[in-house]
Amino acid sequence: MGPIVLYPLYMTSSIGNIFRVHTFGESHGPSVGVVIDGCPPRLSLSRDEIQHDLDRRRPGQSSLVTQRDEPDAVEIMSGLHEGLTLGTPLALVIRNEDHQSGAYDHLKDIYRPSHADYTTQIKYGIRAHEGGGRASARETVGRVAAGAVARKVLSEHSGIEVIAWVKQVHDITTSIDPSDVTLDMVESNDTRCPDPDDSERIRQAIVNARRDGNSLGGVVECVARNVPVGLGDPVFGKLEAELAKAMMSLPASKGFEIGSGFSGASMTGREHNDLFETGPSGEARTTTNNSGGIQGGISNGEDVLLRVAFKPTATIASSQKTIDKEGNAIDLTARGRHDPCVLPRAVPMVEAMACLVICDALLRQAAIDIFPHIP
Amino acid sequence: MGPIVLYPLYMTSSIGNIFRVHTFGESHGPSVGVVIDGCPPRLSLSRDEIQHDLDRRRPGQSSLVTQRDEPDAVEIMSGLHEGLTLGTPLALVIRNEDHQSGAYDHLKDIYRPSHADYTTQIKYGIRAHEGGGRASARETVGRVAAGAVARKVLSEHSGIEVIAWVKQVHDITTSIDPSDVTLDMVESNDTRCPDPDDSERIRQAIVNARRDGNSLGGVVECVARNVPVGLGDPVFGKLEAELAKAMMSLPASKGFEIGSGFSGASMTGREHNDLFETGPSGEARTTTNNSGGIQGGISNGEDVLLRVAFKPTATIASSQKTIDKEGNAIDLTARGRHDPCVLPRAVPMVEAMACLVICDALLRQAAIDIFPHIP
Amino acid sequence: MGPIVLYPLYMTSSIGNIFRVHTFGESHGPSVGVVIDGCPPRLSLSRDEIQHDLDRRRPGQSSLVTQRDEPDAVEIMSGLHEGLTLGTPLALVIRNEDHQSGAYDHLKDIYRPSHADYTTQIKYGIRAHEGGGRASARETVGRVAAGAVARKVLSEHSGIEVIAWVKQVHDITTSIDPSDVTLDMVESNDTRCPDPDDSERIRQAIVNARRDGNSLGGVVECVARNVPVGLGDPVFGKLEAELAKAMMSLPASKGFEIGSGFSGASMTGREHNDLFETGPSGEARTTTNNSGGIQGGISNGEDVLLRVAFKPTATIASSQKTIDKEGNAIDLTARGRHDPCVLPRAVPMVEAMACLVICDALLRQAAIDIFPHIP
Amino acid sequence: MGPIVLYPLYMTSSIGNIFRVHTFGESHGPSVGVVIDGCPPRLSLSRDEIQHDLDRRRPGQSSLVTQRDEPDAVEIMSGLHEGLTLGTPLALVIRNEDHQSGAYDHLKDIYRPSHADYTTQIKYGIRAHEGGGRASARETVGRVAAGAVARKVLSEHSGIEVIAWVKQVHDITTSIDPSDVTLDMVESNDTRCPDPDDSERIRQAIVNARRDGNSLGGVVECVARNVPVGLGDPVFGKLEAELAKAMMSLPASKGFEIGSGFSGASMTGREHNDLFETGPSGEARTTTNNSGGIQGGISNGEDVLLRVAFKPTATIASSQKTIDKEGNAIDLTARGRHDPCVLPRAVPMVEAMACLVICDALLRQAAIDIFPHIP
Repeated sequence: MGPIVLYPLYMTSSIGNIFRVHTFGESHGPSVGVVIDGCPPRLSLSRDEIQHDLDRRRPGQSSLVTQRDEPDAVEIMSGLHEGLTLGTPLALVIRNEDHQSGAYDHLKDIYRPSHADYTTQIKYGIRAHEGGGRASARETVGRVAAGAVARKVLSEHSGIEVIAWVKQVHDITTSIDPSDVTLDMVESNDTRCPDPDDSERIRQAIVNARRDGNSLGGVVECVARNVPVGLGDPVFGKLEAELAKAMMSLPASKGFEIGSGFSGASMTGREHNDLFETGPSGEARTTTNNSGGIQGGISNGEDVLLRVAFKPTATIASSQKTIDKEGNAIDLTARGRHDPCVLPRAVPMVEAMACLVICDALLRQAAIDIFPHIP
Repeated sequence: MGPIVLYPLYMTSSIGNIFRVHTFGESHGPSVGVVIDGCPPRLSLSRDEIQHDLDRRRPGQSSLVTQRDEPDAVEIMSGLHEGLTLGTPLALVIRNEDHQSGAYDHLKDIYRPSHADYTTQIKYGIRAHEGGGRASARETVGRVAAGAVARKVLSEHSGIEVIAWVKQVHDITTSIDPSDVTLDMVESNDTRCPDPDDSERIRQAIVNARRDGNSLGGVVECVARNVPVGLGDPVFGKLEAELAKAMMSLPASKGFEIGSGFSGASMTGREHNDLFETGPSGEARTTTNNSGGIQGGISNGEDVLLRVAFKPTATIASSQKTIDKEGNAIDLTARGRHDPCVLPRAVPMVEAMACLVICDALLRQAAIDIFPHIP
Repeated sequence: MGPIVLYPLYMTSSIGNIFRVHTFGESHGPSVGVVIDGCPPRLSLSRDEIQHDLDRRRPGQSSLVTQRDEPDAVEIMSGLHEGLTLGTPLALVIRNEDHQSGAYDHLKDIYRPSHADYTTQIKYGIRAHEGGGRASARETVGRVAAGAVARKVLSEHSGIEVIAWVKQVHDITTSIDPSDVTLDMVESNDTRCPDPDDSERIRQAIVNARRDGNSLGGVVECVARNVPVGLGDPVFGKLEAELAKAMMSLPASKGFEIGSGFSGASMTGREHNDLFETGPSGEARTTTNNSGGIQGGISNGEDVLLRVAFKPTATIASSQKTIDKEGNAIDLTARGRHDPCVLPRAVPMVEAMACLVICDALLRQAAIDIFPHIP
Repeated sequence: MGPIVLYPLYMTSSIGNIFRVHTFGESHGPSVGVVIDGCPPRLSLSRDEIQHDLDRRRPGQSSLVTQRDEPDAVEIMSGLHEGLTLGTPLALVIRNEDHQSGAYDHLKDIYRPSHADYTTQIKYGIRAHEGGGRASARETVGRVAAGAVARKVLSEHSGIEVIAWVKQVHDITTSIDPSDVTLDMVESNDTRCPDPDDSERIRQAIVNARRDGNSLGGVVECVARNVPVGLGDPVFGKLEAELAKAMMSLPASKGFEIGSGFSGASMTGREHNDLFETGPSGEARTTTNNSGGIQGGISNGEDVLLRVAFKPTATIASSQKTIDKEGNAIDLTARGRHDPCVLPRAVPMVEAMACLVICDALLRQAAIDIFPHIP
């Protein structure tokens, strides 16, 4: 390798303006976790509510996902007092248990294709090679824990509901009506595709990919319902801009759409425009929702609807050509545990990020009689 | 309308961490502009370099775009001393000239379909209805001016080159090899599609849409070349996350892709993985670029390649149903001046946002012997 | 000089979290000014209200201050619509008129004692030597303009009133009861000391210092009345911490105190503690105010009371030893125009910074029925 | 109490721009701690180095301080790999052990004089009354842990050395030459006053105050040596402004001075100006240091010298009048454990804050070949 020398200044492990989330932790270090600053005080919150969402993203849930066995038990280290938030930072820690670090020894000096090994090494001059370190999807544990708290704020405040599901895996596309999907439908099977027939085809495709030592990409769709009019802060803090950033910061994501998305590019204005009409309570409604619930960067009261594309898992159990740190050509076959398709476990991650962004926008908006005080 | 009452806290008219850009200005107010804080000192910079990029996004350039006649002449109000930047804030002001505000009087109380009129009114309780106010594409003047400064930093530093072009308009898709495109090819025609045949078909489609009182969407593609390895700050400041936010903050954008994008969702890992090999100077290279030049949120030295989907212009010269502030049904036919297709003018906007994000990542990275001092 | 080489990353010309202020401009460049982002919408605001505060800090007001003749006429470039704020960025520009740049030619390569010439040159590798460039007190024009807007927000919201005055000049100390001072008393004489006798002694001292080619330091005291309980954000955004940062960012400031300040260090707890009692409306009040209106970083409803120490003006009309860029010893006698004592003009600057900090804390607090919307 | 109703948005438990510190934890909750984001990679760091500074601020060290018995054992939860930092967030957790929460039951509804009880209750509508919750000085554990990491960065980089000491307690003032003080001198006695005679007088005064059920205030002085020219970011991020904010965010601080401080207010320019001369290596030096090592907000290479005033501890073992939440008058005599004088333990807190601010300024400055990579 030539003498590429860079001097990194910082990682940005924080997101949010009012509801601020600071994550930490590597895949095979002592723990992963998160500090949440800016959570409203007097929010009723229990450890179980957070654990519930962690269990949904947990590895080892089914034969479709990685067999790493992690209880992912969360401990609340600060910020809670007799079941109520104090308005002080909530620190949540989840210890890593099932390390098996030795399984990664052979990767110490190898750059795995389409992983972050090479770029991390060059940027930082050091990396925790076991399981990808901070570049591992395990980093999302802190996000999901924080997302559970954000979800509680949303539900307490105004019944905002965020649901995501698998819309596509490889060439298996589905036609799911976003307005029909319930959380029960999503959780009814281990693919997290709410249509039973499509789910079965997806399950089979993932099983086949694993058997072939291959992996599959796909698309997660997500809806946020009951979002009040007015969330999002133009011009750079538009709601879709913050959502795009949040989703594109997830491992393996390659694309983001709001409303009509890329299909809107091949439409005419006459087809695409969402006409206003007056709703039953005298409120403004639109007859269609190509806008995806956001106009001019601000929520308009319709369902916020988005999609995120994920690439196929980079780790595959097949031989691949690559190089090591010295530039020597290598034939690599992955060991270690991994998901043949990230989509089922990406669903709670997408939900978490949507909850974080919308909660932050909501608190920014200070639609504000959330937690009245009785001094 | 029902008593929807929200109390907005703020607009977020700032972007960037080190190279910080603060834009201001409404479509029909006294001026639009930008303050850039964090520009490196001793950068050679002239008013003409900024004006050049402003001229590219200027209205009234061709029959394909709005006929609003704005000279868009920039004035540098601070931060420059004898042709060199001082490291202090650069304030750039462009006065609005061709107001024709009266043309918007009939829209004062009307919510135009798929515009920001309704959401702005509810969020802020007030709006400058003339030309969309701050929600107008005219807001991007400040972005393009700042982008020109960022572009200068990039070219002075390391020859990083950012070029965008029109890849699709409506159903006219093109097959352009991103590695071939030059700025001259893009600027050789008024569609900003670098392929002459495709360009002519696009030109005709836009002319037809205008004649029909309709509008068209499309896709802009953008490449950044010579990006050093190491830009981007995991986990929330990943390079593609910052790019996604920047692009999705542009008016009318509906989707964002990096590298393989949504097409990556229907690929397998064996197809999608970018294999490493050793390049001619001993550096690591990839044999394909599905990653779009970014792995683990950090640039890997390959071309950064992205696409942005734009919806068809919301303003069309046809009758549409909508409502006014009182909830009364209205038949609306647009007056005022507008683009039947934003794509040609979106090209310099996408370039500007890419320059801003990459310049900020570069300065964050402090790859730092940019401007050696001789005290 | 030895080869000291640093690579500066940025100036931080922004302050505030919700009410965000971005200043720009050098002493002898085209203009100075400010962009305010986050000002609440629907605030009634006129150019005259801003001009009023600018006139108070303007040079050339009396024989006690610099004779630079600047009209300091503010132009509102964006953010206002028919006399109401839009919630979009307010851009305010004040052109520099009375340059006399030639008067500074002899200082091009000289480091003036106790000025920012040397540090600016080393940090940035460049400086606008005319009048101190961005390090000039002229930089505070943008602060005072923004402070006038903040003051309007405070007065519209809850009658919060911010008044500062000269408490000490050189060895002339005064005993002014902060609860008695009115703006009229402060503005009744050109020293801005509200006690007529003390004011006369201060006036004479400044006149004498000017005649002797010398300069004087002093102390400004400032009170904020009618501050609601609850402003300030522990632990790092405590109200006194934000006030201290704001005041210590003013040119020539050397010290900051809240409440008892340094005198509190020589007190006992029994003397210093502010005992609570129940006020006439059943509210909690304290019988003394050593806390200066802030407890645990949060306002307690008593007057917020602070003091700022300013050093004597560094520019004096006497011969001083110094060096030039080459390290050669120099005898320097100042030309150019300057204040023999910054205190009278520091008063509106301190007021402005207090208004900015309290306004930002107030909006953070979202005590929020400030501007009810009528959608 | 009347119906004071506020809706708090957030606590600001973060400080720093590049070296970003997020603290968490209440006095009697499960733990206190900190997440540090932006620490340079490849920094050699051990648990013991952090523990060393924690031990200095630990309660129960001597008869002069609170007898709460806390081991304050730090656990590193992430960010370290084989003794080197990864450039990823460092999470440090210290569990609270010696709770004795029951000792605070009688304070549940009482507002202690000059504590944060009242303002916290009104702002958040809830508080952890045991030991002051987040308003306790125990909150500074996280700061001191982060300060130890910052100190390591400073020493590795350029031998920057930060030392603080007790300069005054009550009416016992000392005349210590800041250029002479060593860490050993400070740690040689339990008052942390480096002069043995003064130290003994201070020790006796504190012992007397404790016996009398009273408490004492004082002043900490702090020097940073070997600071390179160029740190600090005008205009709002001036080095003294950031230091002032950091110090005034410490519990019980009432005043801040840089260099000459308040005494500079009674000086003339001829006395106060620091004349430049050429130093032995051809560098610019000043013959005096009234500037306190900072000119125009930027370090000038001389010692950075500051002072912080602390009020007497609010908790005293004497009867005081106050009120409860209902507004009833109460006679209160403190129980629980507390320091009769915070000064000895404030020394490591002041050092930690100075290290954090200077480290952040240093990394902002990117004086940048700190940690060369060997890819």
